[in-house]
Amino acid sequence: MTALQSENTLSVRNPRTGEKDFTIEAITEQKLAEVCTNIRKEQVAWNELGVDGRIKVLEQWKQVLIENREALLDAVSIDTGRRRESTREVDNIVKWITKWSLVAEQQLAPLTTDTSLPTVKSTTDYSPYPVIGIISPWNFPLSLSLMDAIPALLAGCAVVVKPSEVTPRFIEPMLATIQQVPELAKVFTYVVGAGNIGAAMIQHIDMVCFTGSTATGRKVGIAAAEKFIPAFLELGGKDPAIVTETADLERATSAILVGSVLGAGHQCYSIERIYVAESIYPQFVEMLTEKAKQINVNYPEIDKGEVGPLIFEKQADIIADHIADAKEKGATVQTGGKIQKLGGGLWCKPTVISDVDHSMKIMNDETFGPVMPIMPFKTIEEAIELANESPYGLSGAVFAGTNEEGLAIARKLDAGGISINDSGLAPFFIGDRDVAEKNAFKSSGLGGSRLGTDSIKRFVRKKALLCNHSNEASAWWYTK
Amino acid sequence: MTALQSENTLSVRNPRTGEKDFTIEAITEQKLAEVCTNIRKEQVAWNELGVDGRIKVLEQWKQVLIENREALLDAVSIDTGRRRESTREVDNIVKWITKWSLVAEQQLAPLTTDTSLPTVKSTTDYSPYPVIGIISPWNFPLSLSLMDAIPALLAGCAVVVKPSEVTPRFIEPMLATIQQVPELAKVFTYVVGAGNIGAAMIQHIDMVCFTGSTATGRKVGIAAAEKFIPAFLELGGKDPAIVTETADLERATSAILVGSVLGAGHQCYSIERIYVAESIYPQFVEMLTEKAKQINVNYPEIDKGEVGPLIFEKQADIIADHIADAKEKGATVQTGGKIQKLGGGLWCKPTVISDVDHSMKIMNDETFGPVMPIMPFKTIEEAIELANESPYGLSGAVFAGTNEEGLAIARKLDAGGISINDSGLAPFFIGDRDVAEKNAFKSSGLGGSRLGTDSIKRFVRKKALLCNHSNEASAWWYTK
Repeated sequence: MTALQSENTLSVRNPRTGEKDFTIEAITEQKLAEVCTNIRKEQVAWNELGVDGRIKVLEQWKQVLIENREALLDAVSIDTGRRRESTREVDNIVKWITKWSLVAEQQLAPLTTDTSLPTVKSTTDYSPYPVIGIISPWNFPLSLSLMDAIPALLAGCAVVVKPSEVTPRFIEPMLATIQQVPELAKVFTYVVGAGNIGAAMIQHIDMVCFTGSTATGRKVGIAAAEKFIPAFLELGGKDPAIVTETADLERATSAILVGSVLGAGHQCYSIERIYVAESIYPQFVEMLTEKAKQINVNYPEIDKGEVGPLIFEKQADIIADHIADAKEKGATVQTGGKIQKLGGGLWCKPTVISDVDHSMKIMNDETFGPVMPIMPFKTIEEAIELANESPYGLSGAVFAGTNEEGLAIARKLDAGGISINDSGLAPFFIGDRDVAEKNAFKSSGLGGSRLGTDSIKRFVRKKALLCNHSNEASAWWYTK
Repeated sequence: MTALQSENTLSVRNPRTGEKDFTIEAITEQKLAEVCTNIRKEQVAWNELGVDGRIKVLEQWKQVLIENREALLDAVSIDTGRRRESTREVDNIVKWITKWSLVAEQQLAPLTTDTSLPTVKSTTDYSPYPVIGIISPWNFPLSLSLMDAIPALLAGCAVVVKPSEVTPRFIEPMLATIQQVPELAKVFTYVVGAGNIGAAMIQHIDMVCFTGSTATGRKVGIAAAEKFIPAFLELGGKDPAIVTETADLERATSAILVGSVLGAGHQCYSIERIYVAESIYPQFVEMLTEKAKQINVNYPEIDKGEVGPLIFEKQADIIADHIADAKEKGATVQTGGKIQKLGGGLWCKPTVISDVDHSMKIMNDETFGPVMPIMPFKTIEEAIELANESPYGLSGAVFAGTNEEGLAIARKLDAGGISINDSGLAPFFIGDRDVAEKNAFKSSGLGGSRLGTDSIKRFVRKKALLCNHSNEASAWWYTK
């Protein structure tokens, strides 16, 4: 190992074994600058290719992704220690290419209209931000590295992705698929590195998309503001679920369980707080606890059991700390509640906690684990107030006897995406022909909707082209 | 004068006399916090009033504004030292209320649709940012304090405006009109103060709209990013005009003259750089110079002459510095070129400068004065390259033999709003039924379109309400 190698070499932990069994070579800042300069040059031709042309290139890439499904799946399965969610990650990106391609042309078509000035016609053009930088996290490393990249590429942007250094194994097979489509490889690449590379990247791009923690998101937002580049941030959440006394408890407990423990709770839109009507509270706690006990960790076999390992070691400490803090302040752990070390990896079984209140970390800070703290409420007004008593406002869920009852409550929640009589519906509407658009509220993020049809418009600037068709310029409004 | 008064009292210069003949009492930071807390509480009822209800309240206010036209006009005429533009300022706000009210309902109507998931219906709701803070500049002090406030109020937000301390005389009569409409006064107010009050305000609001310099805009953007609140910034410009050899020179020179000297060039969308095809360059310079000579300053009589005084003393220094720098580097002043002190005020006659190049400040930095530097070009490609060689990208103009020729050039300019065979068309499309939407490119700003129908959507968050209508929650995608 040379001196240069040792400086830029990062060791990577395997979440199933705890061993550092993989290394990556971080890009240098100089090389990063070159990469960005190159894709900036190539973006001009990519934009001139038009939406149709770009769809064709992405269609080629989609075929390559399908052919290389196993290699991608294997790599991301090691990155995350789980196979079920990894399968969804890989298969989703193929769907997203299809779904976004369906809406791209309509979303980006220029529109010429008459205006309220009789002599002036207006055309609205969409002009892509030339280079988009994406800083993506470790919880769904493969799909979150592409959730913004696909619409950005369709919009005519060049894209550089800096994925988390915690889960970098998928990058090499992913780059290999891109390189099989030379036209795509000119404007789309991944770079490897830690936080310093993400920070350096902001100096070379025209818009940044960041998914990750609120603390890092703040730094990204500030660095972007210094340069007047838009920042799309999707940050922490502490999503509430409200269950009214009219709700179907069988349905509510199943949906909340999935909404909370999927991906070991490593999801921004995980349900992390549950408010249940007092009259049904004991029954709800019991039912959820029983169902939670049926869910197992996927150890020793990756294909058996539902809950994968905790991917990031530091996150395990946070989860343990939140549970300990709750217990200290009087909460009761109904099931789960321990971080288990199995074969060197760290796992957390679905954890149901009752007797919680808002003095506890577990009801305030993002836990990002399969933990379900439940609190009773007396009135719907109280439930809404408790749900809104949070710095976060990403999404949430409401369970009620009718969708109308649920909608009325959902309308009062300060969050961008509310599932009614279900959980976690928002992520379905990616690049679809649906209007299911949402913004992150409060400290959960910044920027346009990642969801729904309109999402692609985050990557273009509107340009008003105003033609005066008369024989005279509008100088009259000053000189006459 | 008490000790407290002296600390918070600011003297205000009269741009026609140079005398400090007016004082304002700045709000304290504590009082500012109270004001924001109050309007935040009142915003809930304002939102519940619905678009219809809010339109009615603004309609009442519009009548009060019309009744108080003279008082507002008198005040802003002293603030700016000009009457022609002040008349437009006052009359515009009345128009804007009408135009935005026409589109508000349609823009804010929730939309329910089926989705690509057969069991899920989606409703997109628009949820206003509760409190909008507006920091407005001195160049069009009255209208720029309201350009964002009117759509924000219609959207259901509460609004607090901190106008420039350079031109604060209009605030008192404006507040008087607001107080005549009690329902409006609960959610809409002005506060008086310098930069520290603007900075303090950011701590109490949910979105900031700032119009002003790039340097201050950067600070505002960073402070907003720290809080994860969206910042709408409209900053400096160095708008180019391109004149091809096929252009109608009579028309081009008239439109460029107006586009450059209106408001003494104190407009973000002033034309500040002119690129003219080599073959017609001498003729263009001659024609523009002749026309510029016909334009006079409005001294000694405010109603005679077209160009008002330089409102902000420091801006006069910048204009003088840009002209001196250009002359030093070999430019030729064809007409104008001097800051004149008349009766204590500072004026600058329309200034045409030839023999300029991109080494000069006058072709790079915002001048914000009635100054027209002209540079010849050989090919259209060169003209486009020169026009795009700027950190700014607010707007621009193209003059060509046909609108098609102009459009083709306009499409290659890195700016948000391009007038073709005209200048300064963009500001017409405020709250209109037109799609003339635009973003600020590069360092000219950040955030959604202030122009066109969609502008009102800057003030709301999209909320996806996703109802599952089937008998089963979507738990299947995990447990089955």
